[in-house]
Amino acid sequence: MTASPFRRAAILAIGSELLTPNRIDTNSLFVTSALNAIGIDVVFKAVAGDDRVELQALVAHALGRVDLVVLTGGLGPTDDDVTREVVAAHLGLPLAEDRTITDAIRRRFDARGWVMPEINRRQAMVPRGALVIANPNGTAPGLWIEHGTQGVLLVPGPPREMRPMVEQMVAERLLARADGRRVVRRVLKIAGRSESRVEELTQPVYSRWRALDTPVETTILAAPGQIELHLSARGNDAAGLDAVLDRAAGEIEAVLADDVFSSDGASIEEVVGALLLSRGWKIALAESCTGGLATSRLTDVSGSSAYVERGVVAYSNEAKIAMLGVGPDLITAFGAVSEPVAQSMAEGIRDRAKVDVGVGITGIAGPTGGTESKPVGMVCISVVTPPRTLVRTFRFPGNRELVKTFAAFTALDMVRRMILERVKGSEGVEANTSG
Amino acid sequence: MTASPFRRAAILAIGSELLTPNRIDTNSLFVTSALNAIGIDVVFKAVAGDDRVELQALVAHALGRVDLVVLTGGLGPTDDDVTREVVAAHLGLPLAEDRTITDAIRRRFDARGWVMPEINRRQAMVPRGALVIANPNGTAPGLWIEHGTQGVLLVPGPPREMRPMVEQMVAERLLARADGRRVVRRVLKIAGRSESRVEELTQPVYSRWRALDTPVETTILAAPGQIELHLSARGNDAAGLDAVLDRAAGEIEAVLADDVFSSDGASIEEVVGALLLSRGWKIALAESCTGGLATSRLTDVSGSSAYVERGVVAYSNEAKIAMLGVGPDLITAFGAVSEPVAQSMAEGIRDRAKVDVGVGITGIAGPTGGTESKPVGMVCISVVTPPRTLVRTFRFPGNRELVKTFAAFTALDMVRRMILERVKGSEGVEANTSG
Repeated sequence: MTASPFRRAAILAIGSELLTPNRIDTNSLFVTSALNAIGIDVVFKAVAGDDRVELQALVAHALGRVDLVVLTGGLGPTDDDVTREVVAAHLGLPLAEDRTITDAIRRRFDARGWVMPEINRRQAMVPRGALVIANPNGTAPGLWIEHGTQGVLLVPGPPREMRPMVEQMVAERLLARADGRRVVRRVLKIAGRSESRVEELTQPVYSRWRALDTPVETTILAAPGQIELHLSARGNDAAGLDAVLDRAAGEIEAVLADDVFSSDGASIEEVVGALLLSRGWKIALAESCTGGLATSRLTDVSGSSAYVERGVVAYSNEAKIAMLGVGPDLITAFGAVSEPVAQSMAEGIRDRAKVDVGVGITGIAGPTGGTESKPVGMVCISVVTPPRTLVRTFRFPGNRELVKTFAAFTALDMVRRMILERVKGSEGVEANTSG
Repeated sequence: MTASPFRRAAILAIGSELLTPNRIDTNSLFVTSALNAIGIDVVFKAVAGDDRVELQALVAHALGRVDLVVLTGGLGPTDDDVTREVVAAHLGLPLAEDRTITDAIRRRFDARGWVMPEINRRQAMVPRGALVIANPNGTAPGLWIEHGTQGVLLVPGPPREMRPMVEQMVAERLLARADGRRVVRRVLKIAGRSESRVEELTQPVYSRWRALDTPVETTILAAPGQIELHLSARGNDAAGLDAVLDRAAGEIEAVLADDVFSSDGASIEEVVGALLLSRGWKIALAESCTGGLATSRLTDVSGSSAYVERGVVAYSNEAKIAMLGVGPDLITAFGAVSEPVAQSMAEGIRDRAKVDVGVGITGIAGPTGGTESKPVGMVCISVVTPPRTLVRTFRFPGNRELVKTFAAFTALDMVRRMILERVKGSEGVEANTSG
């Protein structure tokens, strides 16, 4: 017997905290992406609290409307984790403890020298006939239940537990039950342009795509410092869809040129890391207002110890002088937030670390410390890769955290452009002040 | 006739873009906050696409469960804006054009020297008996429909249009229909304990609160390194609720003692910053595996330049030796990831920066670089505040980013405990490996 394909899905996120003004469900974005990739549409999503009655009502609503229901969260060991019991009761499936799960949970506690609390046994309760999905990153296993022609997937709420389990189930169970009309997506990441400028430049290009045999949908999204252009196409033939999106991405890159820094999902720190590795270059960073954020982002990449030699957070003038050799007279003459000081920081860290690329960042993250001539959000960034030196002044919008994020991103993008030798004269990098 | 009070609400966000992997409904957070403030609970929320059938089904579900339904979005002029028509049809209310709305929309276009497109007339269609809510920031008016004892509010999706309309309706209509039972919330943040251990220790305390005259609800949430205990109480008397939550928080703190680092929403970096300021102390950090993340977090706090003197990211052995004075023999004898090296890093940065508190962090963030005796996730952290020195070894779970997050958090928590002089002998900090 061939089961009918899954086409329509609903996602339910469970947790009372997700109904407060302080928390939001983001797991559904990952689940949507995984389902769309195999041609399953998400037709609605919902959030329920740790409330048996409301959750049961939503489960009933969902099972009345879709082929596949994915529930995230509410699988913890405590009394207020009700997902497992509500779904089992609604489907009329008795729960029984699975000792292999209990043992696995106990081993996780043992490994840390802790005793498993008795309440964790609740996580070993399995509805009859359910498939248990191992959780390498936590105690709550996932559950997959086939109910007539419908499927119900229960996964834990913490993203690092949820994600690999969803990926595994897509590969092992859902792909075989999808109808093959995949949605293929591509994300172009763009630096140094405002959202409205990207729209203005690309709209004449992407507006033509709707008339193609395989139409390409576009969405523009802004994040601090970077703009993302999301392209998607739908059809049966994955290779054909890829070709359509390759062509589309190519047309955008022809317009935006080096402002497109990634078309495969890579982050700016991954792109910079790959460039440094390809040149066999090492980098060292001297940060003031970004407080270590640029170095931290670079070291988010596995293997970054091969090219990140060191970083310095020189918050005080004394630290800039002692650790980077910035001249006290330079600080007196131009101020700590100035292009000469940024450049001296970049040169100082590069000389001391004996590396190829030096970076200096100094600015006013705010909300205090701004003046008429040096307002909050003003940041000077210098990148030195002899024989070339680049130094620029930006004015970033937003609060302290946003200014730090903009500045760290922009510094890494300047490193990218310097390595590619694509900074010409005094143009080059342009501050994205849209926000 | 006095209508029965609104106690239970549902929020529906409408828009196909909100069902893609790229966009998320955040309007519901604002609406939740506005409703909670007048004692109305949000018992579920949902997202529907621009799809008449699914939206109608969700509206029916919501009206079967709650007193008040708030719908955001889908009030635009185009064919795919279906909220107005679906709600009117479901409630059996005929739609008729309201010429005063058409005129107002036309004036908005006139003011820009534009001609109103005919499709904008759709935004002037009003269900019989509905109250029209003027929209000073856009063309789509809001609608308020009283349906028997229930209320249905339709507002546009753009936040700057939605927010003032919701605020106006809360003040003019909903407040009078709410029962005045506000919800007051408190968040306790806890370090150095697993989620299940916090549950085990606090459950005997908070389980008694359900029997109070003013019951206190609790939710436990885990984030890397920290556990949050959310308390909430509901009633008419805001000062009384505060007193109840003060008492409840006090009972938890009596059990968890110094593991509670915040009861007012402050982050660990804010707590550490305030402690440093109160002592008039300065801090300097030497990081390896965290790559600057601990320093960056400390400098997320406005005014942190008053106490963060400097940071060093000593990724290479050469940097540890040159910038921190770590002995090459120490690295050879114990390895770069070891307690003696962590302590030497903390002492080195403290001496060089001439500050009160020195921090050293060295570990294996992974996914590569682990060995049998020094596995991925092993991190040595030292905090030096003469005459006391603390050094600990942890094994953090998860991927590279998570190990960095755990380690940075734990280092800041160790600083907190050292300043409070609450680390005793070899016990003290315990790694939180739950999640």
